[in-house]
Amino acid sequence: MTFYERYTTAYEKSGTRLCIGLDTDARMIPEELLSQANPIAAFNRMVIEATSDLCSAYKMNLAFYESEGRFGLEALEDTIAAIPEGVLTIGDAKRGDIGNTAERYAQAMFEHFGFDGATISPYMGSDTMKPWFDYPGHGVFVLALTSNPGSAEFQRLDTGDGIPLYKRVITRTLETYGATGSVGFVVGATHPAELAEVREELGDDVVLLIPGLGSQGGDAEATVAANSQGRAWFNVSRAIINPPSGAADGLDTATVIRRAAEAFRDSLREIPSDPQQVVS
Amino acid sequence: MTFYERYTTAYEKSGTRLCIGLDTDARMIPEELLSQANPIAAFNRMVIEATSDLCSAYKMNLAFYESEGRFGLEALEDTIAAIPEGVLTIGDAKRGDIGNTAERYAQAMFEHFGFDGATISPYMGSDTMKPWFDYPGHGVFVLALTSNPGSAEFQRLDTGDGIPLYKRVITRTLETYGATGSVGFVVGATHPAELAEVREELGDDVVLLIPGLGSQGGDAEATVAANSQGRAWFNVSRAIINPPSGAADGLDTATVIRRAAEAFRDSLREIPSDPQQVVS
Repeated sequence: MTFYERYTTAYEKSGTRLCIGLDTDARMIPEELLSQANPIAAFNRMVIEATSDLCSAYKMNLAFYESEGRFGLEALEDTIAAIPEGVLTIGDAKRGDIGNTAERYAQAMFEHFGFDGATISPYMGSDTMKPWFDYPGHGVFVLALTSNPGSAEFQRLDTGDGIPLYKRVITRTLETYGATGSVGFVVGATHPAELAEVREELGDDVVLLIPGLGSQGGDAEATVAANSQGRAWFNVSRAIINPPSGAADGLDTATVIRRAAEAFRDSLREIPSDPQQVVS
Repeated sequence: MTFYERYTTAYEKSGTRLCIGLDTDARMIPEELLSQANPIAAFNRMVIEATSDLCSAYKMNLAFYESEGRFGLEALEDTIAAIPEGVLTIGDAKRGDIGNTAERYAQAMFEHFGFDGATISPYMGSDTMKPWFDYPGHGVFVLALTSNPGSAEFQRLDTGDGIPLYKRVITRTLETYGATGSVGFVVGATHPAELAEVREELGDDVVLLIPGLGSQGGDAEATVAANSQGRAWFNVSRAIINPPSGAADGLDTATVIRRAAEAFRDSLREIPSDPQQVVS
């Protein structure tokens, strides 16, 4: 099965393109979990139990685990093991390095941790992407136009004929690896006009990973419209796993998190009355 | 002390700009070390004992450790602890991510592992570099023109007025963080003409990290000439730590590795008769 087919299976089962970012900040973990052997793993298990029927993928940014050393990697391994079959996992690591090194990163992400997909950085060129595409059925999300303000600095530079760098990255990646059924791109929800243009050029098959909703300020309705029913994950991290404290109202943490995830799932529906009928 | 001053101290003590890359491939470890509790750590300790007077820095590419999971991170921690005071450590991780995430990566590299310097990727823009420059005295090496063939694809794109992307990266980074005494760049030894041009534009203060010698085919003499006595590390990884098996001649592994390091140190001398007199 190609990664595109695996995406569709996960989407059809869940009826949503919501991806929940498990970017777990050890400093934000509720007090009642701090006595657990591994509080990060315990928190993530709670989030997964509360939300796994509300999303089609979980994305884990490696920075939040690496910064805790071995203890963090243990939490990451436990978290991946806790995600139910049918919900896909994305390792958001944005790696990019020369051939023999990229092989080891791909091995770390797809073999050691067992992620279904991973993000990579294109700066070093398409030769450095090859080891990632040597894993059939795995998704490779190349950074194109990221959600942060600084994305304007280099990614939007005119590289001749009015073509910005991020479009060259997309074109070159597709030319080289387009036939694998594994190519994806990262395009931030903070750029809905460019997102619509990219989707239009790519067609609906290529999976887009769209961060920037929630804490980063991207608008759900504009993002859904711009994506136009193509294969995509709309990622929300902090606004789901660290909901504002005022949201609690005497509810337990798991319930508050579930309600935040439900609200995002609903706001991301293409046809609010019946999400199952949307083209997958 | 700024990172530039720390560089000079390490250089003056050792008399060499050689940086040894501990990119330890678990599959290349000699048989006699495989019975050790952590063969990667044991191998690295052997390399460090054999070479620490022949270099002014060790560079560790994180990919080789991450791909071994927790066991690999344990080896990395042990390796850093085994490096004698006065020889600096560079975490070659090429990270690049948005603000709150970059903070965690910087924390992982500079606090958890305690590296003296780290490599980062500029693709997402200079705002994503900030957390790295919040650690005074630590070196931040921004990828500019990398040593691999694919570096031509995006890094050399003309971004207007004949200015390639990698020069915009250099200019923008210096404009923003030039006053920190921490800025460095990665420029591959496989591009000696561009290296000479970058050095000319930067002056001698900015530290360059120059990979691509040894297995990647960069020429030592041309690279030393191009760098023109500026602050720099010439990195050699595989050609020192995995010397060709024919080099052994009945010698033990530590001796073979020491001889390979000596040969590189000597080939990288600016004034072969007296390296101590070179401007540091």
